[in-house]
Formats: sequence, C-alpha cells, structure tokens
Amino acid sequence: MFQTTFQRYLTMIEQFLAQLPWDKDILNQSMSYSLIGGGKRIRPVLALASAEAVGGNPEAILPAAVSLELIHTYSLIHDDLPAMDNDDYRRGRLSNHKVFGEAHAILAGDALLTYAFEFLADSGLGQPERQLRIIHEVAVAAGKVGMVGGQVADLAGEGKTLTLNEIEEIHKAKTGALLTVSARLGGILAGGTEEQIKALTDYAQALGLAFQIKDDILDVVGDSETLGKPAGSDIRQRKATYVSLLGLEGAGSQMHAQILKAQSALKLFDEGAIFLSELASYIEQRQH
Amino acid sequence: MFQTTFQRYLTMIEQFLAQLPWDKDILNQSMSYSLIGGGKRIRPVLALASAEAVGGNPEAILPAAVSLELIHTYSLIHDDLPAMDNDDYRRGRLSNHKVFGEAHAILAGDALLTYAFEFLADSGLGQPERQLRIIHEVAVAAGKVGMVGGQVADLAGEGKTLTLNEIEEIHKAKTGALLTVSARLGGILAGGTEEQIKALTDYAQALGLAFQIKDDILDVVGDSETLGKPAGSDIRQRKATYVSLLGLEGAGSQMHAQILKAQSALKLFDEGAIFLSELASYIEQRQH
Repeated sequence: MFQTTFQRYLTMIEQFLAQLPWDKDILNQSMSYSLIGGGKRIRPVLALASAEAVGGNPEAILPAAVSLELIHTYSLIHDDLPAMDNDDYRRGRLSNHKVFGEAHAILAGDALLTYAFEFLADSGLGQPERQLRIIHEVAVAAGKVGMVGGQVADLAGEGKTLTLNEIEEIHKAKTGALLTVSARLGGILAGGTEEQIKALTDYAQALGLAFQIKDDILDVVGDSETLGKPAGSDIRQRKATYVSLLGLEGAGSQMHAQILKAQSALKLFDEGAIFLSELASYIEQRQH
Repeated sequence: MFQTTFQRYLTMIEQFLAQLPWDKDILNQSMSYSLIGGGKRIRPVLALASAEAVGGNPEAILPAAVSLELIHTYSLIHDDLPAMDNDDYRRGRLSNHKVFGEAHAILAGDALLTYAFEFLADSGLGQPERQLRIIHEVAVAAGKVGMVGGQVADLAGEGKTLTLNEIEEIHKAKTGALLTVSARLGGILAGGTEEQIKALTDYAQALGLAFQIKDDILDVVGDSETLGKPAGSDIRQRKATYVSLLGLEGAGSQMHAQILKAQSALKLFDEGAIFLSELASYIEQRQH
C-alpha cells in the first residue's frame, strides 16, 4: 500500500517533469540532466502526501510540489561546484559541471531556481492568497535564513569542532527548512486548517532531522555504489556529523527518536496520514 | 522636475534597501556589498514611474519594485565570476567574488534571487491575482527563456561573428526581458488597464534596446573611471556589438530611433508619463 502510493506520486512527478518544454540547447540540457537524472523526490512527495492528508487532491498542486524538486536540484548543482564542495559525482553520475562546465552549471542552477517560482505562481493552483503565502514561505526557506544560509554555515564549519547544537542549527537551515515548507505547501495549498498545518510542520521538522542523521550514518556505513556518491566524504572533509559526535549507535537512537516524534505529530489525522507515517519509517530504513 | 522625481524614487529605493535586516555574517555582507554599492536603479525606477503613470501610488509597490534590483544584482554577481565573464571590477569597485571569494559570491547571488521572490510575495502589495500574474512574469523574464537564457547565448556568441539580428535576440533575452517586466510590474500592480500595460511594454522594449546600444557605445567612447569598469572590454573579448556591426554613427542613430519609438509609445498617457519620456532622453545621454 505504501509502495503503491509512493509509486503513484513518483509517476505524477516524473511525468510532469518529462513533459516540460526541454529544448535542445545546452541550458535546457544542463537543467534536465540534473533534474531528470534520478533523486528520491522526497520534497514533492511530502507535498503531495500532505495535500492528501488534509483531504485535498494532489494533482491540483502538482506544479507547486514539483517546484520544490527544482529548488533542491539547483542547490545540489551549486553545492557540487569546485568553489564549493567540489564533488565530481552525484546520484551515481558525473556532477553537472563535470558534464556542462562551470558556467553552464551555475546558470542551470539559476534557471532552475527561477523556474521554480514560475510553477509556484501557476495560475491553476487555486486560491491566490494561499499561493502567495506559500511563495513567501518557500522563498524564506530557500534563502538567506534557510537553505542558502545553511550552506554558508556548513562551509564555515568545515574542519572545525562543532557542538551538536551547532550541527543541528546548520541542518535545520540547510535541509530542514525546505523539507518543512514542502509539507506546509501541500497542507496550505490544499486548504488544511491551521491545526493541520501545524501538525504537518512538526512532522516535517522531526522527519528532516532524522533524514539528516540518516545521511550522516550512510556516509559511514553505506557503500559508494548504492549511495551514488563517494562514501566517507564527511570524514575526508573533516566534517563534524551526528556520527562523529555521538557514535553510530548514538546517532541511530537519535534518529529513531525523531522518527517517533514525526509519527506522533500525525495522530490528529487518523487514517489520512498513514502514508506520511510510513514515509518516516522508509526514511529510517533507506540505504541511499 | 525630472531630477526631482528621479531623486524621490531613488530615495525610496535606497531607504528600503538600507533598512533591510542585514546581519553581520559573511552572506549578508556579500549580498549587501553588491546591492547597496551603487547602480543606476533603472529597473525599480521604471517600475515606480510606471505605477505612477497609471495613476497608482509608487510607495505601495515598493517591495516589488526593489525585487527587480535584487534580481539584476544577482545576475551581475554571477556574470562576473571567473567561470563566466571573469570581471574583477564592477561599478568602480572590486567585484563580489574578488572580495568574498567564489563560493560566497555564488551563494550571495542565489540568496538575492530568492530574496526577490520574498518581496514579490509581500502580503501588503494589494490584489493577490495581480501579484501572482507579475510573479509569474518576473520568473519567466529572469529565467531560461529570458535573462539566464540570454547570458548562455551571450557566452556562446563570444568570438563568433554574429548578425545584427542575433545580437538583438541576445539582448532582448539578457537585458530586455527584465527591463520590460519592470515597467509591466508597475503598471499591473498599480491596476493599469490592459491598454496602458501594452503601452508600457512597447515603451520598455524600445528603451531596453536603446539602453543596450548605449552600453555598446560607452564601451568604445567612455573612459574606465566614469564607467566604473574597464572600457574597451567588448573589443578585447572580441564581442560582436552594435558598434562593431554598425559603426559608432550607425549605432547612435539606431539608438535614437529606439528612444523616439519609446517616447511615442507613451502618448496614451498625456501628462502622466512625462517622467518616463524624460527617462528615455536621460538614458540616451548617460555617460555610464
């Protein structure tokens, strides 16, 4: 049942991405190379499932849900650049700048970020007030106090001894904010009550933290082939992680506590949020 | 009168930018270094004047007008990067990456672009339908078929022999689209009629072309100190320009024709668009 629903969401997302007007020029090639080349689609799936949890139709918010994947993809392209993390591989393939060059990688990222707001402002999404609210929230979550700010803090932290609290602050900004706004987007656009939106927020915040701890664990215990990127890169880059601070077992129980917290935030929804609850378990068990 | 109005707009814009919450961290420093360090503010001025031309209050659309300067500034920061135009100077000062490093320059650009949409989605801007319309238009104008696409085409054209038509297509995308949407933004948000919005569009398209031809002329006849960047860079980069194709005199008369075209598009407004008309003359005469 979980797999069927997940697959239904993934099919919606992939079909939407594939039918976009990808021209043959290098900019479009560069954008679609990174966007269509895999990825777990966690953010749009979260949005679609959250819309359904509040009784909405996920199809109706699809352009907005997909915009979150565009923003996530742009951030990966820019993070991989030589001036930043200098990663040659991503999702098991060469990173964008290794294929298209640095200039086109920067511009493809810029264009994906911009394209995201085109979809968020799509005229078919329903109530304009809700839409403006979520455009504002997405911009905040992706911007200087959210994702971009988190990447700056992450770069500044390399090679330094960070406290658990500092690591958590970085992750909240770098990955947590966009994951949280993904769930809120589904809830808000589909007309959820403020109480429902609050529950989705609590769920996604805990889920985001668990997601990040799992990432840190996989970097230690995963193998490069399954991950699609070199394992052990945190250690090589001397990055402070949950595992380096808490050990594997400590990180594992921290993660589990967050998964339980995420799931308990959903009790308000009864049956409607079974998928979201199982998504949390899926994230705890994922191998890449 | 023109100078008084221009100054009134500039004061509104600079005060708005200065009162934003610029924290002391390197990301905020990098963003504000490029944003507050000068610039002609043509895009927000166009938006404010267009709002006034259709009878609106420019103060009411200020956050949206300023968003255009954020987008313009981000594009300059990214264009100056070593992987792109590799320019060390901008507006008479070191370019962003020369001061803050490449990683922070990329991220400051990303954050400025994102911040722009936060302002476009500002809750105090009036009718949500108009706002969504303009967010969509700005995203299109700044994105893959607009500004970013134009920069890609510009990079591809370096060192090649381009026709006048090809140069015009590049400029329409790279600079024309955002200038045009600036005028439309003012007209649309301030509640202009479709006829008025069309007139503002025709005006801004001609103005944008004149602006670019003047840029090409200044690169040949201007001096580096007044320009704030090295003169003669088009020739050194073997870029095809209006001057290289038409000669100085030919480019000058092309520019003048566009200025007249811009001004004649305004006849619909009678008194209300005197500033916009004089702005066109100002652009024809500017020395930097």
